Order: sequence, then C-alpha cells, then structure tokens
Amino acid sequence: MDSRQFHSPLPHYPGFAGRLTAGMNDNLHQLRCFGCGDRISGSEVLPDFRCAKCGDLFEVEYAGWSLRGGTNRPNAGALKWLWRERRSSSETLDHSGVWRFRELLPILDNYGNAVTLREGNTPLYALTRAAQKLGVDQLYAKHQGMNPTGSFKDTGMTAALSVAKERGFEWVACASTGNTSAAMAAYAARAGLRSLVLIPEGKIAWGKLSQAMDYGAVTCQLKTDFDGCVKVLAEIVQKEPIYLLNSVNPYRLEGQKTPAFEIAEALDWNVPDHLIVPGGNLANSSALGKGFREMRELGLVARMPRISVIQAAGANPLVRSLSANHGKDLEPVEAHTRATAIRIGNPASWRKAVRVIQDTDGWCLDVTEAEIAIAKAELGAEGLGCEPASAVTLAGLKKLRAEGKIGSGETVVLVLTGHTLKDADYTIDFHRGTLLKEEESAGYGEDIEKLRRNAVAVDANPRAVIAAMRGSAG
Amino acid sequence: MDSRQFHSPLPHYPGFAGRLTAGMNDNLHQLRCFGCGDRISGSEVLPDFRCAKCGDLFEVEYAGWSLRGGTNRPNAGALKWLWRERRSSSETLDHSGVWRFRELLPILDNYGNAVTLREGNTPLYALTRAAQKLGVDQLYAKHQGMNPTGSFKDTGMTAALSVAKERGFEWVACASTGNTSAAMAAYAARAGLRSLVLIPEGKIAWGKLSQAMDYGAVTCQLKTDFDGCVKVLAEIVQKEPIYLLNSVNPYRLEGQKTPAFEIAEALDWNVPDHLIVPGGNLANSSALGKGFREMRELGLVARMPRISVIQAAGANPLVRSLSANHGKDLEPVEAHTRATAIRIGNPASWRKAVRVIQDTDGWCLDVTEAEIAIAKAELGAEGLGCEPASAVTLAGLKKLRAEGKIGSGETVVLVLTGHTLKDADYTIDFHRGTLLKEEESAGYGEDIEKLRRNAVAVDANPRAVIAAMRGSAG
Repeated sequence: MDSRQFHSPLPHYPGFAGRLTAGMNDNLHQLRCFGCGDRISGSEVLPDFRCAKCGDLFEVEYAGWSLRGGTNRPNAGALKWLWRERRSSSETLDHSGVWRFRELLPILDNYGNAVTLREGNTPLYALTRAAQKLGVDQLYAKHQGMNPTGSFKDTGMTAALSVAKERGFEWVACASTGNTSAAMAAYAARAGLRSLVLIPEGKIAWGKLSQAMDYGAVTCQLKTDFDGCVKVLAEIVQKEPIYLLNSVNPYRLEGQKTPAFEIAEALDWNVPDHLIVPGGNLANSSALGKGFREMRELGLVARMPRISVIQAAGANPLVRSLSANHGKDLEPVEAHTRATAIRIGNPASWRKAVRVIQDTDGWCLDVTEAEIAIAKAELGAEGLGCEPASAVTLAGLKKLRAEGKIGSGETVVLVLTGHTLKDADYTIDFHRGTLLKEEESAGYGEDIEKLRRNAVAVDANPRAVIAAMRGSAG
Repeated sequence: MDSRQFHSPLPHYPGFAGRLTAGMNDNLHQLRCFGCGDRISGSEVLPDFRCAKCGDLFEVEYAGWSLRGGTNRPNAGALKWLWRERRSSSETLDHSGVWRFRELLPILDNYGNAVTLREGNTPLYALTRAAQKLGVDQLYAKHQGMNPTGSFKDTGMTAALSVAKERGFEWVACASTGNTSAAMAAYAARAGLRSLVLIPEGKIAWGKLSQAMDYGAVTCQLKTDFDGCVKVLAEIVQKEPIYLLNSVNPYRLEGQKTPAFEIAEALDWNVPDHLIVPGGNLANSSALGKGFREMRELGLVARMPRISVIQAAGANPLVRSLSANHGKDLEPVEAHTRATAIRIGNPASWRKAVRVIQDTDGWCLDVTEAEIAIAKAELGAEGLGCEPASAVTLAGLKKLRAEGKIGSGETVVLVLTGHTLKDADYTIDFHRGTLLKEEESAGYGEDIEKLRRNAVAVDANPRAVIAAMRGSAG
C-alpha cells in the first residue's frame, strides 16, 4: 500500500486529501533525548532505547509541526473533519482509536504495517452520582480498561509493535508480570511475531500471567529480581534481533497519547479543566500530557488541562520527589500496595511526568489503601468496574475537592486504566472483608460497610430473600 | 425527550427523518407465545414471563413490519444510511451498538430511558491463519467478549434493563453465578436501580461473582440447587415489584439480536454463508437468528446465513434432542464441562434454537474437552483471547470442514461470547498441563504440547534465556 494514500475515501472534498497528506506520512519523526536534548533519527536509536550520550530516555518529536504554516504542519480543521469521517469508515485501520488519528503519530513508513486489535475508542462515561456527591459540575471517566486486553497498555502496544513489524523483527520482549505482557503478547500474536516475557523467580502471580500464556508468549522465570530481569533483557536485545517493548520504548507513548485526542473530540474540542491520572511507571501521564500539548501546538485545542497524578501512599516516589526537591531527583522506594498496576518504586518515566505536572500546574498526591478500596467500590456502584489502580483517581479527586484545589464549576476527567476483571481477587477480598488490615481501615469502617456486598446465606423461600433484600445497605 | 425525535441531527436529508420516524417509535411491539401462538401486549405479560395459557416463552414481534409498504415498515435504504451516520454522532445513545439500531428494537416509549454502557460495536476480526489452515476463504470472529462487562450478555441486558427502568421498577433480579449476574449488576448500577442475584448454596465460585459484587448487587446464597433458585425467584416477582432478568425475559433477545446487524453492516450488507454459535442456554443462537430473519423480512439483506450451534459433549441436550426426535422434545442432562458458560443441562430457549437451526439448514454438534482447549489456544495464538465456551465455535468449524459440510469458498463467522479474563484459571490450568484428564487428552497430546506455554525457570543470563527462546515450540 502506498503510504501517501489514505485508507478512507474522501468523497466530498478531494482537495482536503492533498493538503492533509502533503508530506505527512513521510515518517518525519525524530527522537529527542529527554536528558541532554540530543536529537537522532528513529533508525539510529540503540536497542535498549537509552541515549548513547547520557543514558536518559527519548521522546518522539515531529520537527515539521513547529513551523506555523510550514508544509508539514497538519491543518487542524481538516483533521477534525477527517477523524470524524473515519468513524463511519469501513477500513480496519479507521476502526482503531489510535490509528484513526494517524496524522499525529506518523511513525510508520507504511500503514499497512499497523497491527491493530481495534483498540481505543473507549467510552467517556459521565459520573453523575459522584459529581453530585462531590459538588463538581461535570465529571467523566475515560475508561481505558475497555481496550481489547483490558488495559490502557493496548494503545501504546499497537504503536510500538507496529514499528517492530515494520522494521522486520520476528521477536519482541518485555520484563513484566502484568498488563504490559498481556498487551505485548496479544499484539505480537496478531502480527504473527513471537514474544518473550521475563519475570522474576519466586511467587508467580499466575492470574496476571494467564493472558500472556493465552496469547502464546514464551515466559522465562529468572533467578533474579525485577531489575535483574530488565538488565538481562537489555543485554539480550544488544545481542539478538529482539525488539524491546518495555516502557522505555518511546513509540509506546505515541499510542498512549491518543486518549487525549478522544477526550477532546468527545467534548467537542473543549479541553477539560482537569485530568486526573494514576501514577505508577508514569509513562501514561507523560503520554497524555504530550497528546494535549501537541493538540495545542497544532491549534486543535486552545489550552492544556491541568494534569494531576495520584499515587498509592505505599508507592509514592514521585510525591516524595516533588515535595523534597521539586522533582529534581527521585529516590526509589520499596513499593507496597494492593493496587498492583501502580506498585512501582522506581518509575522509568518520572522526569517526563514532572514536566507534565509542572507545565500544567497539576498536583501530585497520594491516597491510602482504604481510600483506594472505597473509591473502587463507589465507581463500581455507578456501573464502572475497574482495577484498583484506576480508583486512585476518584480518591485523589475527593482530596483535591476537600482541599479546595478543584472548583465546583470545573470539568474533570478521571482516567481509568484497567478493567475490573484484571484483579477479581481484590474485589472479592474487599467484599468479604479480608482486603484491609485493621490499621488500614481505621476511621473508614462505616464507609466500607455501606459499600460491602458479601454474599449472604438465606433460606430457600421468598420471604427470607425479601427480608435479606430489605436489610441490605444501599 | 420526545420519543419521536431522533438523537442525531439529520443535516442533509430532513425528508428521511419524517419517513423513518412515522410511527416507528410508537412502542408497537407485542409478545407472541412461542408455544401456543397467543399474542398479548407488552404490559399484559406476567412477572415470570411465562404464557398464562401454556407456560411457554414469549418472543417480541413487530406487527407493522409484516405489511410490505405499510406505514410502520422501516425503509431499508434509509436505515442503512442513518445507522452509518450515527457512527460519527456525538450522542451517547448512538455510541451503543445496540441502540444505534433502535428502529429495529422499538421496545421503549422514550429512548431517554435507555441504560447504556456503550455496549456493542464489537470487533469483527479476520482469522487469517485459521482460515488458511482450514482452507476456508473468509473466516471472521465476532468478539462479543469485548462488551463492557466482558460477555455478550451486555447487549441483551441494556435492552431488558431499559424496559425495567421505563416501567418504574426499583429492583431487578436473576438467578445466575456467571456472566448474566455481572451484566445485570452493571446495568442496574448504571441506572441507579438495585439488583438481586440468587445462587445455590455450596461451593461459591467467587471469581465469577466478583463482578456482581463490584457493581453492588445483593447476593443471596440459597439452601437449594439452581432450579430451586429459579423457582424462588419466580415466586418473589409475583409478590414484589421486582423485574425478572433471567433469559426467559424476551427483551434480552431484542438486544442480543443486534450483533447480526453489525455483522451484516461490516460485510457491506452481504450475509455470511455460515454463522457458528456456542450452545448453552440457547438464547443467543435464537436471538441472532431473529436478527437475521428480521433483516431479511425488511429487505436489509437478501438471505439468511446457515446458523449452526455447537455444544460441549458433556452438556449436549440439544444435540441429543435433534438426533433422537428432530427437536420435538428435549431431555435435560447433567452437564459436565470446564466451559462453564455453556455448562447447562436444561436450556430454557431450546425450542427457539431448534427453529433457527431448522429454518436455516444449520447443524448442531458437540465437541470434546480437548477440542475446546485446543481451539481456545489456537484463537489465543491469533491474538484473540476468549473464554472456553467461545472456543467451541472454532472446534465445531474444524469438524464441519472435515465432514465436508462447509465448502472452501464460504464466508464463515464464529461468534465469540466472552473475554479471556472471564476464566483465567482455565487458561492457567491448560498451560500448566493440569486442565485435562489423561483420557480427555488421549490422541491430542502432540497438538496440545505444541500450544502449551508454561513458564520455564531459567538462569539469569542472556545465553540461558536465548536458549530457552530457541527451544520453545511455535
């Protein structure tokens, strides 16, 4: 397929096509080191995606966009029209909520190499009851857990794995026991590539691995810890033609920025006042910030939202860093939280997240295990199941409202990152009353009891069941 | 909201709107008894949804459609245009893959009562590798596991729960330990209604219940078996204003028929030659058959697909009924299969399924536990995770191809009903080699070993990992 051609027909305004495509699919990206600012081409990057000069991470940059009126600068109005038009297209690529916006992630030479499972296009749910309770005008949840493998990682994986395919790799790899390995294995299987997952020895969380196995990944359990796995993997990709898909891969962020486009489009290109994101490895807040920044630079939206990052109190290295030294250094912590997706003590993308928070005047705070559990149950009670890490956003919003940092007239979007089925055990433990230790739930007992829904044993007759119903909280 | 108005603007052809809406939203449906043929209005039905005369089930019927050129008959061409147009609409209701087709399920007086979680619009994935292996021209998987709660039940629940809301119910209920209770609880929570789940005492499958608890359902565990729960529930709904959402509720099938519209639309209104559906309670095959039949009656498509139903060999009452007495009677069986979603020995909708199979010249056959497990792993290896019940479709297709019942030039669609995360234990047990008993896997050992992906313990150095990769099957 000619990369200069569009997949979708442009029946009404053929002139648009010419203007839109001029130079746009020319793979015009470059990589800029986030530490020393060095710029290299995509083909020059080392297999471990670290800067050869300073060891920091790269981010993808599109040089042509910065020139107002330059030939490579996309036309904002035409893009909005085109992206809307694609929603009713019958082309596979247009069904992806990532590749529908491909003009803003021109990282492939040929879009025929894009590997898609119909990711993105996730719902933006109105949270009317929580909004009323918290006194916020407009409250939404952008549910990234509705992606094909059940987490936001799919949006990034479709982008980075397509690059792997275009560059001719036959194997891809990551060190992960959770959502990343599930997404990688699924997209690799879809593309016909092989995938390798490295995990530390010891207690395997089989539930978390089930998806990677289902999608045919090869899983190696190494006699070392997580950092040891990352190190072995970095050595392997130097020796063998294996494409690294850990979060250091900058192309993942190009996919993960697209929910920003979806949010803006759903609000008719009005940017929300406030976006609240869970903070684990911190690539997601970075990516969403990049998405909004690029939209503003291209004139698609008028301003940035405030972007706040919420961590679990037991895994809060960014909170500590910002309070101790304004984000100049980050001291890794030993992470403890039942919200496994953000149980990360040494986040790879912390510098990028610091910039996003500081650029948008956002906040960074942490919430306790009880606050997370309560918020998750409250989201569930509005019909939105999510994994525990997602619920830090609602818990954080409550704190920000209580501290007067969010006004009642604001439009707030919570980013939910994973599906409730990703961690059924957490849900069960909460409702059975075995999730929290006594010291964790102290002071929250009443709130928790109101939300708990344990199964009750009842005699098999209508009167007994009706009595149980009437006696239930709610 | 005026029920005669459309949600989406109709900018170009205002004339269409008038013609389309004439009488169409007038809640013109009636209920026809599947046993004795008696017709009643929707408001006359008993709370247990059984015919007062013969005790059989009802199905929803739209009288106005049968008159060619009648005023209530939808205009096929205009509908196709309208449904496509809605895909780029910004209205919440148009984002639902069920309510986008609301002209073909006019069961509400006021669409403002529709309760939606953005269900439907599920992917139709091309299965290129399986197609090549089996020698089938075009093979697709319609993945209903990509619905919000992870199963096809959502499409039916949005329809029936909206009826409950419109009729003013505050409580809804079902007897279920699995996907039905998850879907019911989620939609009830979304609507602000309360929900009640009845389950038999004994070994609770907590994992299966986690979603119902997450969405705030009240769960009662009764000292009886499953049929006892159904009986108690039927008594409760006679006494109390509680709306019954078990599969006897005919409105659920109105939602569950909409994937037929999506499939036809995705194939540019060309009907596939063959649709293959898992057979458990048999409401799904009935609903899909109804969807295709109504499309043909209204001139949206030219013909019906052949619809085949596949059961697990350990839960095959329909296979037995068709072979013993051509589907005149059904003898319940004691059901045994690890594919829990179709572990049903006494399916409620078997008469409806018999009609669909016989009307479309479809087949009904069963597949073994090993065949199911292998088919699930093969779907996973193409990047499509699914719950085991979904995999009977691919296992059935293999048999039908081997028996020459499906030609190489045919277009075949497999209906996958649930997400892989619905049953992580099954996946883990398969890959660890503990799923199948020796007698179950006899004769399939080699196929199984090629697909198994158990985690392997490896020394923490690159050479050892590379050796493990090279040694892996695939």
